[in-house]
Amino acid sequence: MQFVTGKKEEKTVLLSEIISGNYTHKSVVLRGFVHTVRDMSEFSFLVIRTFEGIIQCVTSTEVTKDVVASLKEGMTVEVQGEVHEELRAPNGYEIILTRLLILSEPAKDSTMPLPISKWKLNTSLEAKLSLRPIALRNIRERAIFKIQEGIVRGFRDFLFSEHFTEVRTPKIVAGNAEGGANVFKLEYFGKKAFLAQSPQFYKQTMVGVYDRVFEAAPVFRAEKHNTTRHLNEYTSLDFEMGYIDSFEDIMNMETAMLTFIFELLSKDYKKECEILGINLPKTDKIPAVRFDEAKQLVSEKYDRKIKNPFDLEPEEEVLIGRYFKEEYDSDFVFVTHYPSKKRPFYAMDDPSDKRFTLSFDLLFKGMEITTGGQRIHNYEEQVAKMKDRGMNIEDFEHYLMIHKHGMPPHGGLGIGLERLTMRLLEEANVRETSLFPRDVSRLEP
Amino acid sequence: MQFVTGKKEEKTVLLSEIISGNYTHKSVVLRGFVHTVRDMSEFSFLVIRTFEGIIQCVTSTEVTKDVVASLKEGMTVEVQGEVHEELRAPNGYEIILTRLLILSEPAKDSTMPLPISKWKLNTSLEAKLSLRPIALRNIRERAIFKIQEGIVRGFRDFLFSEHFTEVRTPKIVAGNAEGGANVFKLEYFGKKAFLAQSPQFYKQTMVGVYDRVFEAAPVFRAEKHNTTRHLNEYTSLDFEMGYIDSFEDIMNMETAMLTFIFELLSKDYKKECEILGINLPKTDKIPAVRFDEAKQLVSEKYDRKIKNPFDLEPEEEVLIGRYFKEEYDSDFVFVTHYPSKKRPFYAMDDPSDKRFTLSFDLLFKGMEITTGGQRIHNYEEQVAKMKDRGMNIEDFEHYLMIHKHGMPPHGGLGIGLERLTMRLLEEANVRETSLFPRDVSRLEP
Repeated sequence: MQFVTGKKEEKTVLLSEIISGNYTHKSVVLRGFVHTVRDMSEFSFLVIRTFEGIIQCVTSTEVTKDVVASLKEGMTVEVQGEVHEELRAPNGYEIILTRLLILSEPAKDSTMPLPISKWKLNTSLEAKLSLRPIALRNIRERAIFKIQEGIVRGFRDFLFSEHFTEVRTPKIVAGNAEGGANVFKLEYFGKKAFLAQSPQFYKQTMVGVYDRVFEAAPVFRAEKHNTTRHLNEYTSLDFEMGYIDSFEDIMNMETAMLTFIFELLSKDYKKECEILGINLPKTDKIPAVRFDEAKQLVSEKYDRKIKNPFDLEPEEEVLIGRYFKEEYDSDFVFVTHYPSKKRPFYAMDDPSDKRFTLSFDLLFKGMEITTGGQRIHNYEEQVAKMKDRGMNIEDFEHYLMIHKHGMPPHGGLGIGLERLTMRLLEEANVRETSLFPRDVSRLEP
Repeated sequence: MQFVTGKKEEKTVLLSEIISGNYTHKSVVLRGFVHTVRDMSEFSFLVIRTFEGIIQCVTSTEVTKDVVASLKEGMTVEVQGEVHEELRAPNGYEIILTRLLILSEPAKDSTMPLPISKWKLNTSLEAKLSLRPIALRNIRERAIFKIQEGIVRGFRDFLFSEHFTEVRTPKIVAGNAEGGANVFKLEYFGKKAFLAQSPQFYKQTMVGVYDRVFEAAPVFRAEKHNTTRHLNEYTSLDFEMGYIDSFEDIMNMETAMLTFIFELLSKDYKKECEILGINLPKTDKIPAVRFDEAKQLVSEKYDRKIKNPFDLEPEEEVLIGRYFKEEYDSDFVFVTHYPSKKRPFYAMDDPSDKRFTLSFDLLFKGMEITTGGQRIHNYEEQVAKMKDRGMNIEDFEHYLMIHKHGMPPHGGLGIGLERLTMRLLEEANVRETSLFPRDVSRLEP
């Protein structure tokens, strides 16, 4: 009988360990992709790519120029050799080769369809997306999704430290929380089902169980419009918290969370921030302005007529962002008290003026990245608001169960992960910040 | 202008802080659900429930029996009072009330449909699932999903420490990875789309980018059978790693990961392990046995005829689990070298006997909780195997792109989170370990 007892000792070392100087003048084994081969006439450089970056290897009497010349981009290899400091090499170290082993090869007649070893892929977004599996191997491209990993880690780690519980709610649902037509329909064993537009009902439900909950998971919106800021499938970072005093508690929590995330990025994702040239924004003091005031301020400063006092156009969002950058040097601004008509049925109206809600959006460099607010927790109040809107109470039996049997005052928010990443990187198209974007015309790869 | 600067000081204390003795003889403020009210003739106990558990409050001249008698289960309250040690109280402490404030109330004519304040809900699974939003408020029920949170935390934290990158792959896909008919179809802007049965193609793709990746996300299977161990939507814990020497590297990694998870549970989820009476299994030495040998061993020991040498029936899985418990005192057993016919087209065949694959399942107490193995990385080999199976190469253009342009030797696995939780808790039905289970007849709540 054979037994599996756990991880074996790794034979290979990490690139980061070499760069930190732990292996200088020592022999190391490393595995990675053939990134480039450069003929320097007397010798050649073989540059190897691992998940941590690239390292230069130098040919020798043991591993000759001829051997390295026969290598091809896309092969994976195991190399062995002695580490030396070399200031002119990428990352300051190089390996003098003593052994080289080919681990795998690309297809016989293949040529790399994109110049992935270049610093920046100077190809169209369309080409990058069609060749996504390969394009992502580019060091700059892949850094984008390490940043995204960091954002989600920060989101979770911060909320765990604030006593939130992580939940997993269903994506196949019987009804849709956000209303509207942008919902994907599904055949479910002869019944009609939908893909969840948000975990709204379920995260509220779970507040009744754990007081504070969060989820980072896919949501689905059947938006028919091809815009630079919409995806049909994206990651929603949701949290929901009970026992709040007001919806401002949620804005406070988000502000502290963003601060935590950006600190984590500056620490654990420093390399990727440098690769992408990210300037991490300040979050110590985020202005909060009422919806109607924001419209007024922007209208006055930029001489723009208010067309609809109950709606915010994308151009107005951009101008509000600009206003608070110019006046308060802030990349972020909370816009509060959205009109009731523009918010879902579960939003709590402002008792002092029922035309508005105790809700907010967070704009980041002029784009909405978060929607949040306080929810109605009282059963009679929720039922009345639904009836006012002509909704059928019976359709929401399972949701209203939580109000019926008691809910604490609560509220929460949803953050679009890809949009947050997009604004942080100042990308022009949200597709740049989704690994495999889904839009009206794109279902592959 | 108002500014949001981050989290405010909490007015309330945590139950865990009271229990750890930090507030003895001090006045505290706490918020929570009215769990129970007990009339003790001279005074009353008001038991409050928070996400951390329950605490007993005692009436006083300031907050009288009459006031507490008017409270109703499902209300949420803020209480203030002095903390005293009281060995007879749950958790060893009680609060002598000085102030009580009702924060919210259930519907006027509502009565709690389940005895959620009891230790164990002695109701049918059917009733529990229909009233899930309320049933989950029971302390034992909610402990199940804290354990599940812990498993996912352990999975992620371990893999981060092993230099894996977290990825988010699309759930709406153009083709299906696992084959077979159990796939949900979707109307996608006039095109046919599917819900992902697994992140298989995408996680392999991402090995070409980050060497080692993982994802914990929903997957969808349109299984038409109502069994105690199938769900139509579940959470798959997937990892995939490059530069492996053999598929045994994956079993080693999983073993180390399970050890890490169970250590985390014993430390950070001790309370929930006690509530649920969990005996954490040993993972220091997991037996690994070939598929054909396992069938033989079980056939001999339990006098059972081998019906089909190329398939494993659920009853055989149970017996294999029993065999290794009896002979080696192990709750886990790796069954290796599954027949090629039973594995997908991307599984690598054993070069020494092509009828079998370099793959494995992990059985936990007689049930499959993991499927894994080495994948084909060579383009020509993959194309040949697909053609052998009569597959259309053109349908897999985006997937085969990674083989064409080079992939390291790699493999990985997928773990069914709900099944792992189910076996750990020795639950009889996997629906017990899904927050809001989806099955053939259940789409709500």
